[in-house]
Amino acid sequence: MSLFLDAAWGQDTNRAPIWIMRQAGRYLPEYLAIKEKSSFWEMCRIPELACEITLQPIRRLGVDAAILFQDIMTPLPPMGIGIEFKPGPMIDAPLRTLKAVNDLRIPAQDEVAPFVAEAIKLIRQESPVPLIGFGGAPLTLATYLVQGSGSKDYAEFRQFLRQDPQAAHALLDKLTEVSIRYLKMQVEAGAQAIQLFDSWAGLHDARTYAKFAKPYNSRILEALEPYRIPRLYIAVDALHLYDEIKTLPCEVISVDWRAPLSQVRPMLPGKTLQGNLDPAVLLADKEVITNEVERVLSEGLGGAHIFNLGHGIMRQTDPEHALHLVNTVKAFDRKKARELLLD
Amino acid sequence: MSLFLDAAWGQDTNRAPIWIMRQAGRYLPEYLAIKEKSSFWEMCRIPELACEITLQPIRRLGVDAAILFQDIMTPLPPMGIGIEFKPGPMIDAPLRTLKAVNDLRIPAQDEVAPFVAEAIKLIRQESPVPLIGFGGAPLTLATYLVQGSGSKDYAEFRQFLRQDPQAAHALLDKLTEVSIRYLKMQVEAGAQAIQLFDSWAGLHDARTYAKFAKPYNSRILEALEPYRIPRLYIAVDALHLYDEIKTLPCEVISVDWRAPLSQVRPMLPGKTLQGNLDPAVLLADKEVITNEVERVLSEGLGGAHIFNLGHGIMRQTDPEHALHLVNTVKAFDRKKARELLLD
Repeated sequence: MSLFLDAAWGQDTNRAPIWIMRQAGRYLPEYLAIKEKSSFWEMCRIPELACEITLQPIRRLGVDAAILFQDIMTPLPPMGIGIEFKPGPMIDAPLRTLKAVNDLRIPAQDEVAPFVAEAIKLIRQESPVPLIGFGGAPLTLATYLVQGSGSKDYAEFRQFLRQDPQAAHALLDKLTEVSIRYLKMQVEAGAQAIQLFDSWAGLHDARTYAKFAKPYNSRILEALEPYRIPRLYIAVDALHLYDEIKTLPCEVISVDWRAPLSQVRPMLPGKTLQGNLDPAVLLADKEVITNEVERVLSEGLGGAHIFNLGHGIMRQTDPEHALHLVNTVKAFDRKKARELLLD
Repeated sequence: MSLFLDAAWGQDTNRAPIWIMRQAGRYLPEYLAIKEKSSFWEMCRIPELACEITLQPIRRLGVDAAILFQDIMTPLPPMGIGIEFKPGPMIDAPLRTLKAVNDLRIPAQDEVAPFVAEAIKLIRQESPVPLIGFGGAPLTLATYLVQGSGSKDYAEFRQFLRQDPQAAHALLDKLTEVSIRYLKMQVEAGAQAIQLFDSWAGLHDARTYAKFAKPYNSRILEALEPYRIPRLYIAVDALHLYDEIKTLPCEVISVDWRAPLSQVRPMLPGKTLQGNLDPAVLLADKEVITNEVERVLSEGLGGAHIFNLGHGIMRQTDPEHALHLVNTVKAFDRKKARELLLD
């Protein structure tokens, strides 16, 4: 076992494990060096590259878990969907009709993304820490597929959900099936935990979430149950959804920076909390970082806690500050801090 | 008095008044006709144009209140800040230092935006419904001034708050003073209510809001107290801030679409609630709109309610759908609906 897995399984560890969302990414010069010579799809699809990028932050920062380098869009091209990155995902033909949804293929498990299985095997050979696999939640994947690209308000997608709920459910159902195959494959290849990213769930009200997100998320998370790996879930900007999220079949909920962990903890009983430093804090100087990190750690003392940012690390971040973050978390003794609080 | 003012003052009216955020805007062909011939600053600064645009939705939709056509950036150029619209606001020289903040001027009340006073007088002569004036909250204005433009994560601004809190407070203090002058001028010219727009407050955690937003918002709202006009406040995506927002000195809180009004009401005791239809609903067909509007109206039955969207109307909206919205709200008898609920 490892500190990360212990905490993910609900253990109130003496030290909070840490990993960083987007820890493999554009703030690292060694990542940019690879990016200069390779397209984004190459970085995802060439197992040696995906492995190397996954391991970069482990070497530099000494975080307690690795997260597979891929995009949430990775499993979708075999369904018959054309996607380019410019640099955000752009869908060749946005899906807006039941006919377009019905035309989507559901590839067999070993056809979804075989290069990911290879990357995972390579990473497992080299990584000193557990490997987190991941996928996009169906509602979030559908957000891009219907809208066609990133957007400020995702108006077309929000319209689609209301105007054609039948097509929406058909799409979510297919994305759920493909996600189950994709994530099972990751676990069978060696992933030791799975995080489901529901980046855009927070855009919707709780009623919409209950109808179009929760049943599909639950199906995916339940399909992973037999593997006995911890399941992590993240929805950004989702305080209004926690009454639905609290009953998702998963062990860990990742919390964004908006609300303190001590306030969120009673809303998500029995879950390990992951988070929740504001990523902008890492742009300030080290003294500010130390104070804010220790505050988040103190807010997390009420139960099992995996330290992370509340959202992905920003590309402007100085890698030295990321290292300072990791070292600050590692130096924080949760048992001692609790004793001090009781005094 | 009017239905809008009655509800704003806390009266549990038999029919919910309605107005629509951005009701004067790009979804209206008559607005686009003016926009074709005029720059955005001309539309703001020529009183006859600002008056005409303000009145367009009153004529077409029959809403219960007018809102001044301006931008939250309107009062800033006399401080010595260059702003263009492309189409979002672009700051010529983003403010990042205490020196730059110290160089900002604080214009006299009648120098801030005299054209707005003229526009208000014209509107008051012609409008059959009360006129809402408005301004941007200091934190939201500072977000643009420091960042320099719209952004997905406003990283530079969030860094600035932590790295140079002294400069941040100096900037917020000046913006507060100018906002007070600007809003006093609006009321003295004839505005019958004031809405303070804190569009980006929800980006921050409650601690940051308490430090950098609440004291300045309170100062502005208190400065308007002697005029005895209702004060409205909106922060989008702010459920995590309501424990701070509930004690702002204002009568009305505008709520975004994420949480139902029945859930928000006990969090904001004594306030009139304004909102909170998801603007995307207006992109669906009329039957969907009717159902969703009646649901919001039912959720609002627990106290004083001004109907509005949870955010600005989308430019893709069919004006016929906006009219259908207004008519649906007008046809809803709150007293009768309550009796039905009690049966």
